[in-house]
Amino acid sequence: MRHFLNFADISKAEILSILELASKIKKEAKAREFKPYLKDQKLAMIFEKSSTRTRVSFEVGMIELGGHPLFLSSKDIQLGRGEPVKDTARVLGRMVDMIMARVYKQSDLEELAKYSGVPVINGLSDDFHPVQVMADLLTLQELGLNIEKMKMCYIGDGNNMTNSFIEAAGKLGFELAIATPKGYEPSSAVLEMAQSWAKQSGAKISLTNEPKEAIKNADVVVTDTWISMGQEDEKEGRIADFKGFCIDSKLMAMSGKKSVFLHCLPAYRGYEMSEEVFESHADEIFAEAENRLHAQKGIMVWCDQNR
Amino acid sequence: MRHFLNFADISKAEILSILELASKIKKEAKAREFKPYLKDQKLAMIFEKSSTRTRVSFEVGMIELGGHPLFLSSKDIQLGRGEPVKDTARVLGRMVDMIMARVYKQSDLEELAKYSGVPVINGLSDDFHPVQVMADLLTLQELGLNIEKMKMCYIGDGNNMTNSFIEAAGKLGFELAIATPKGYEPSSAVLEMAQSWAKQSGAKISLTNEPKEAIKNADVVVTDTWISMGQEDEKEGRIADFKGFCIDSKLMAMSGKKSVFLHCLPAYRGYEMSEEVFESHADEIFAEAENRLHAQKGIMVWCDQNR
Amino acid sequence: MRHFLNFADISKAEILSILELASKIKKEAKAREFKPYLKDQKLAMIFEKSSTRTRVSFEVGMIELGGHPLFLSSKDIQLGRGEPVKDTARVLGRMVDMIMARVYKQSDLEELAKYSGVPVINGLSDDFHPVQVMADLLTLQELGLNIEKMKMCYIGDGNNMTNSFIEAAGKLGFELAIATPKGYEPSSAVLEMAQSWAKQSGAKISLTNEPKEAIKNADVVVTDTWISMGQEDEKEGRIADFKGFCIDSKLMAMSGKKSVFLHCLPAYRGYEMSEEVFESHADEIFAEAENRLHAQKGIMVWCDQNR
Repeated sequence: MRHFLNFADISKAEILSILELASKIKKEAKAREFKPYLKDQKLAMIFEKSSTRTRVSFEVGMIELGGHPLFLSSKDIQLGRGEPVKDTARVLGRMVDMIMARVYKQSDLEELAKYSGVPVINGLSDDFHPVQVMADLLTLQELGLNIEKMKMCYIGDGNNMTNSFIEAAGKLGFELAIATPKGYEPSSAVLEMAQSWAKQSGAKISLTNEPKEAIKNADVVVTDTWISMGQEDEKEGRIADFKGFCIDSKLMAMSGKKSVFLHCLPAYRGYEMSEEVFESHADEIFAEAENRLHAQKGIMVWCDQNR
Repeated sequence: MRHFLNFADISKAEILSILELASKIKKEAKAREFKPYLKDQKLAMIFEKSSTRTRVSFEVGMIELGGHPLFLSSKDIQLGRGEPVKDTARVLGRMVDMIMARVYKQSDLEELAKYSGVPVINGLSDDFHPVQVMADLLTLQELGLNIEKMKMCYIGDGNNMTNSFIEAAGKLGFELAIATPKGYEPSSAVLEMAQSWAKQSGAKISLTNEPKEAIKNADVVVTDTWISMGQEDEKEGRIADFKGFCIDSKLMAMSGKKSVFLHCLPAYRGYEMSEEVFESHADEIFAEAENRLHAQKGIMVWCDQNR
Repeated sequence: MRHFLNFADISKAEILSILELASKIKKEAKAREFKPYLKDQKLAMIFEKSSTRTRVSFEVGMIELGGHPLFLSSKDIQLGRGEPVKDTARVLGRMVDMIMARVYKQSDLEELAKYSGVPVINGLSDDFHPVQVMADLLTLQELGLNIEKMKMCYIGDGNNMTNSFIEAAGKLGFELAIATPKGYEPSSAVLEMAQSWAKQSGAKISLTNEPKEAIKNADVVVTDTWISMGQEDEKEGRIADFKGFCIDSKLMAMSGKKSVFLHCLPAYRGYEMSEEVFESHADEIFAEAENRLHAQKGIMVWCDQNR
């Protein structure tokens, strides 16, 4: 039984094979050929917090694979409230074939994986967002980049996306230069773990507080919002802290020629990047969004093949 | 690419052909023959405000056409909050084949249509409710009325339903007599536009504040609630304003012989009509409700055929 | 047209035949053979209160029977608010093939059944929970018990589960010993009715306030939470009232040898039973949870066969 909770459990070869599978299934879907890879399978989709892209991409993905998604919102199911997660896991595992969960606590995913008896996929947690990184990697491959050798630059808040990029770099061996304001660094535990993997993969992972330094020669520039909803009260302080971290055309010009710009959305113009940078890279960004669908289909089929 | 946002964009011939298509698909469904007109297609159903009838009719409709509905409530998706509508449109358009939206602002529908790259259907907006009017027209055809020549009387609040009836009359050429209290008249811009179409269609559209005048010789009498939920604070004032606008048996008797009574529901007995009028026309009213399903199937298939 | 609202309307022979049908369909499903018993049928699932198990089991069940579930939460549909239940029933009945409702008032189920024109199933009400009892009976049969002759002991709050067990005993003829604290007795009207059925079935139904007395020689011990969410303010008082009603290993040992322990979940360790009792009977409890799925498939197919 394999789960997809973060990259720590997954080898480089497995990441590459999932991307290959995703790419193959995407080609079929583009030809409106929807092969029933997961025929009659039921996917429980648990959302502790609502999330349009995660929701639509998993729901459409499961449908196109011949299976059936069940959308369970925080109003329908509350992990660990009312009953222990292990009880919910044991009930769901007897009724559905796979679980996708968008949770706060990574430990809840681990508990679901331990007790459900079915594959569990991390749709997004406070700590990691590996399905989004898989969509990004698929997009970069399609744009002709070598995801084992490229230089990626991440500018912004050291969050769950950053953690998952660090893990991916550590596994795949690409160069990752991260620039965050002081106090917004990603998890040092994750970084340390990835640096240990880097000995084998050859990854170079660096942290700085200087966007201009990190972006030099980057093949791909990535950011993420740093004023999410629910953090509105911190907004003023964050705007001050992130001064100089807005990716505008001038900063973007310091990256490599023809560099790609990715954003997992929602994007806040004038904050993490300018309207101009966003719209001039819109084709890449919305291809990336669409690839949530395709990457996740690869992940679900891989989980099924390894059960 | 054709959308279904209001009647302004749609010709008389097209309205009639959609009704014909709806009628054909309805006959098949009544024989439990569900042809996969929209096989494998995904319909995103966006609800800024919940709406049982719109929800169930579109969801069942898409299923019976061989496709897959995705229900996105205001908790799952919030147009224009967090991200611009054009970003949501570009993401959804890459994952689904069609969008139905029940929104507040008509302009949000136009934005979805402009940026999504897929057909967009107005499930209900503050300004228009064309899918309900299509269901009403289908019902009237089935009851033997000539929808190009009948006299319809609308008594009540000049709202989105009224606007869509005005547009439909302007396009199809039927007579529409509207009675509202002073201050509750429908949109003058819509009325002006429809009067300009009337030159070609022959429609007679009139406004009055006298229900007894409007209802004379009407083949069909229509009303709608004027104390919707969320307007409870205005209730007392509205009850006073709508004095004399309750369609009771006495008022109904002033219409044409065997006149039809329609109501798009929910119906508030004792307010816009009496219990007696409602229940004596219940067969018509619930046939009308069911026709939401059939009319919308016609609209969805038409949109698909014209993409 | 048959509904499944409580056991009062259903004969012993019918209960047994539904269980047989459920068992047959379960065997097929276990072999991943999903026969389309309810092909193309639409099930409206109305939830006045959210309920994970009821939701997932009915949704998966309808899918596996070849039909299509529609999940309507309290946000999407509010029985009796805005419009009379009989209007909602008449609309839904024209769009879907079956209705399952998890409601507060049993009378709302009866209203749905009276006006919808389609089979209505009680997913859970304040008064009865017959689908859970069907799952329990299926589980007990699978564990080798004779559900017409066993002794069941129910210890805890005299609630909707208790009422449905009383009805089931009255119909099937098994022995049911109920122990509740004073003031927490089940419905005397239900008890009286069941005692009248017992004359024919031979059921022995007894009430006591002494758990130790009720549990003697029991083949199966059942409980349910008595500190549900939404009753938190009563929690302290209830803890005092239910002193001595926690089923721990010592109390459990007073039942028959190899007795079964069932719980419809969610379970609150340390309250209605100990962690030890719960986990040592976890296989039975989660088999019971899974049987919600299978029992309800039997019920839905039975309703369809008798329409």
